[in-house]
Amino acid sequence: MPIKLNTEYISSFIKDEEFYAIESQVNLAHNLLQNRTGLGNNFTGWLTLPTDYDREEFDKIKVVSKKIISNTDIFIVIGVGGSYLGARAAIELVHSQYYNDLSKKTPEIYFIGNSLSSTALYNILKICDGKDVSINVISKSGTTIEPAIAFRTFKNFLEKKYGKKEAKNRIFCTTDRQKGPLKAMADEEGYETFVIPDNIGGRFSVLTAVGLLPMAVSGIDIDELILGAKLAQDNLFCNDLNKNDCYKYAAIRNILYRKGKHIEIFASYEPDFLMLNEWLKQLFGESEGKDNKGIFPTSAIFSTDLHSIGQYLQCGRRNLFETVFYIEKPQKDVIIEEISKNVDGLNFLTGKSLSFVNEKAFLGTVLAHTDGCVPNVVFKISEVNPFELGYLFYFFEKACAISSYILGVNPFDQPGVEKYKNNMFDFLKKPGYVSY
Amino acid sequence: MPIKLNTEYISSFIKDEEFYAIESQVNLAHNLLQNRTGLGNNFTGWLTLPTDYDREEFDKIKVVSKKIISNTDIFIVIGVGGSYLGARAAIELVHSQYYNDLSKKTPEIYFIGNSLSSTALYNILKICDGKDVSINVISKSGTTIEPAIAFRTFKNFLEKKYGKKEAKNRIFCTTDRQKGPLKAMADEEGYETFVIPDNIGGRFSVLTAVGLLPMAVSGIDIDELILGAKLAQDNLFCNDLNKNDCYKYAAIRNILYRKGKHIEIFASYEPDFLMLNEWLKQLFGESEGKDNKGIFPTSAIFSTDLHSIGQYLQCGRRNLFETVFYIEKPQKDVIIEEISKNVDGLNFLTGKSLSFVNEKAFLGTVLAHTDGCVPNVVFKISEVNPFELGYLFYFFEKACAISSYILGVNPFDQPGVEKYKNNMFDFLKKPGYVSY
Repeated sequence: MPIKLNTEYISSFIKDEEFYAIESQVNLAHNLLQNRTGLGNNFTGWLTLPTDYDREEFDKIKVVSKKIISNTDIFIVIGVGGSYLGARAAIELVHSQYYNDLSKKTPEIYFIGNSLSSTALYNILKICDGKDVSINVISKSGTTIEPAIAFRTFKNFLEKKYGKKEAKNRIFCTTDRQKGPLKAMADEEGYETFVIPDNIGGRFSVLTAVGLLPMAVSGIDIDELILGAKLAQDNLFCNDLNKNDCYKYAAIRNILYRKGKHIEIFASYEPDFLMLNEWLKQLFGESEGKDNKGIFPTSAIFSTDLHSIGQYLQCGRRNLFETVFYIEKPQKDVIIEEISKNVDGLNFLTGKSLSFVNEKAFLGTVLAHTDGCVPNVVFKISEVNPFELGYLFYFFEKACAISSYILGVNPFDQPGVEKYKNNMFDFLKKPGYVSY
Repeated sequence: MPIKLNTEYISSFIKDEEFYAIESQVNLAHNLLQNRTGLGNNFTGWLTLPTDYDREEFDKIKVVSKKIISNTDIFIVIGVGGSYLGARAAIELVHSQYYNDLSKKTPEIYFIGNSLSSTALYNILKICDGKDVSINVISKSGTTIEPAIAFRTFKNFLEKKYGKKEAKNRIFCTTDRQKGPLKAMADEEGYETFVIPDNIGGRFSVLTAVGLLPMAVSGIDIDELILGAKLAQDNLFCNDLNKNDCYKYAAIRNILYRKGKHIEIFASYEPDFLMLNEWLKQLFGESEGKDNKGIFPTSAIFSTDLHSIGQYLQCGRRNLFETVFYIEKPQKDVIIEEISKNVDGLNFLTGKSLSFVNEKAFLGTVLAHTDGCVPNVVFKISEVNPFELGYLFYFFEKACAISSYILGVNPFDQPGVEKYKNNMFDFLKKPGYVSY
């Protein structure tokens, strides 16, 4: 099993009886999801995606990514929310947070069009100066303002640099299968397009072309990714709380929530996990944070943040729990060297690997925090590779859907996201736009 | 005034009467802090640092940073918590989150020794291959495990690359004035040293050599930084809630906390603010998160995270408030270009600046979130420069101390941070180490 749930550190916070008490609700949630009878059921395409994905599209992604790798120094991914977090999380975890700085045979990858910062857009343009650039704009409609503005800028950048004819070979659109302004433009201009399926929402789209194309361009083996997700689809179908870690995790979250644990900290001991934490935050926050309910999702990287919010976690209000990811075999290891005269008192570690120390920090922290009355849900990941990552993506998508149904909300809508947009367009005096 | 507090968006959540009711507690906190009679008063050296800092040390930082700039491709800063967050926050905000990728006349700067990740250490070493490297290790004692291990690695790296004699010209230690193993070693080996004052704790140390040397190496004008902090010291001394924004903010936080707003989201519309959010999280989390009390500090970058935790902020549990930083003049601006056939419907914005749109997103969001019953404390920063940043650092250090005293905790200790370390050293079987 690629990721293993360890419930040892929640056992003093949840009695067996509590699992019995919530079991029927989990079974109910399973039925709502699998029978597609729950709220938002027309957005459950991700559930069978690992087995029924579009093979032709998948092969096209592999062909196109090879072409991009061959003619591109910098690959610009334009998208916001679910249209960038998954791919960025995968690239940083599988390669490195320093992916762009390390020597490699694949293009540098920058993500833009995820904010309205003029400074960020300006600086990315500067970085592209004199480089061969291709872009992937990811937007269901093409009208979301953050990616739309960045797309205008980079479309013009490419056309000025290469001419309209060559530019069109460097613009890749991931968008609706047939409708919407971006699809229409792509067809007219002759851009290569990839599909965001109608039955998969943004935060569940990482295993579609949305995530797959940027991952493939970075050299991630997307066949392995899908194989991992397929294993998860098989493994996590069983409607038995005691045999299905995914359902058990969903149950734990709801049990803890109902007893006042209103904050969940996704924590990892690997800095490269930072953006995967961000992906999890969107997944759970957007799915559950509605109707004045939901666990507030936040994140930490340890041991870094043990020297930051660690004090709060140990001694602050007891309204929180942690979901900890520990990677058993790190991507790279380093042997601890000797220092003369043992100045730091750490020569007893000489010759040991740094990952050995990181593991003890993990064990020591889990113990310290549970002693401090913070339940710790622990996930062990044996190693980071596309297969395990595919499993992980599917695991948490399903856990989130099940958890949301137990909570009693629609896991697949996000009504609150529109409100700031409406106000913004009012302030911008968008022609013909009336928000209320 | 470099940063302005706007209370317009909290007025429907806090009555004037509530300010009257807490005013005397604010006055009391002022007296505890200024008279140095409160808990932890031997760690209040930061309070007068902008006027009584060590001029000789300051000048040495300027001289040494010039030398480093002249002979260094990559500057490695080794430190954890307060020994790296401030400098990193400053460099990313004043220059860019893409500082290392942009062309410049100053060295690339990487931060390491802030975690126990072997992958991170390995990759930074890879990046240093073939480059001219200098290092700055920042540790009061020299025995904190994260920086100590990274220091061993980089000391050996430099000695292997340059020989012991030249290596010592590339090693800079920021540590205790006279005691501790790192200071002893530095004196023996002949490394240049800088001082972490005894009366200033880690999270309040950004305006000492801890923050100043890396900032100066990046080209930040540290004279301006200190001038800004000095203005803050002068402006924010007045013990009148209605004339002192710093005290008003401390009062607001406590009023909101007492009515159930237990989560504070530090939010900015500028991605380059990301690490300053992290600095704020450590400052407030470590100062207030104790004795089962305190606001849980977390952060967001908008509009990015409006497509992530935005849904929760708009519609989730109403146990949170936001502290929003809006930068009025961005570092760089970009003019929105035209797109043919107005495919995205945004041609009405053609010729406008992107910062104009970002401002409307800010206004629209503040309105949406307050409509959704989330109080929004707004800080406007006129522009990002070292002067305003110095002001900001001092403002929030003082606000945090006052807020902590109002809450009834020692703002300057962090007893909870030791617990995981004790457990870890037990697991590591540190010779002679007995944790309990």
